[in-house]
Amino acid sequence: MEWAIHACVNLAWLPEGTAVPVARLAEFHELPSAYLNKHFQALARGGVVASRPGQRGGFQLARPADAIAVLDIVDAIEGREPAFRCTEIRQRGPMPASRRECQVPCQIATVMHGAEQAWRDELAAVSIATVADDVARSHPTVPDRIRVWFLAAR
Amino acid sequence: MEWAIHACVNLAWLPEGTAVPVARLAEFHELPSAYLNKHFQALARGGVVASRPGQRGGFQLARPADAIAVLDIVDAIEGREPAFRCTEIRQRGPMPASRRECQVPCQIATVMHGAEQAWRDELAAVSIATVADDVARSHPTVPDRIRVWFLAAR
Repeated sequence: MEWAIHACVNLAWLPEGTAVPVARLAEFHELPSAYLNKHFQALARGGVVASRPGQRGGFQLARPADAIAVLDIVDAIEGREPAFRCTEIRQRGPMPASRRECQVPCQIATVMHGAEQAWRDELAAVSIATVADDVARSHPTVPDRIRVWFLAAR
Repeated sequence: MEWAIHACVNLAWLPEGTAVPVARLAEFHELPSAYLNKHFQALARGGVVASRPGQRGGFQLARPADAIAVLDIVDAIEGREPAFRCTEIRQRGPMPASRRECQVPCQIATVMHGAEQAWRDELAAVSIATVADDVARSHPTVPDRIRVWFLAAR
């Protein structure tokens, strides 16, 4: 998760249309290529990155960085299953609520899912471009260093 | 987690000063007493419940239900460790940022922790009394049924 967001921020600094081979991304993050490839496939399915075949192939952002939310990356990597799973406790035990009583969602699930929605809203409101700009503001030399390193091996 | 919140809502409906034996709570939730006891000890350490010794002993809410937030229960059971752990990726790899550059927190960690704070804020804003009132409003017979069942075995 953590490296996936870092990787997307790095891709945002490359000139448009630059694809980076998985091996190069793996080298940067000191992770096995196969592991990285698996997760980049998930990012591709989530519409965050696109793969380009061929000699200059690899992965690039699928959309402009200001159209990719941090939430898109989190959803692509971790899936959209809620963290809180309601198992309908109220329908079990010695005094189960009837099915009719359970037509409204359980109040406890409602609270927990409301909190997750607040978490999602925060991550949906921040784009990769915003993160990249924030980094560049506090570390002005970083984008160029990243560009040089990722373009060096081409 | 789910049953712990349900259990605290149930305790909120009992007359003040009523302690419930772990065995009775376990029976209600169809969970092993030892498992329940372990988690109720955690709730006690978190200041959510208090244990009372003796023949009429057991667990009761440690404070009025309107002074216990859903977040208090979540923190007591799951701990306060953030879900997102920043491993300072920026200080690793082929182009590590210097320690001086890392005096400001990583922007990615800032975004992720901001979202977790939004989640915490939501859960901090809802008390067990509010959940209990919401349940009672949509299921008016529930509090009495719960009271009768928990007091029956005394």
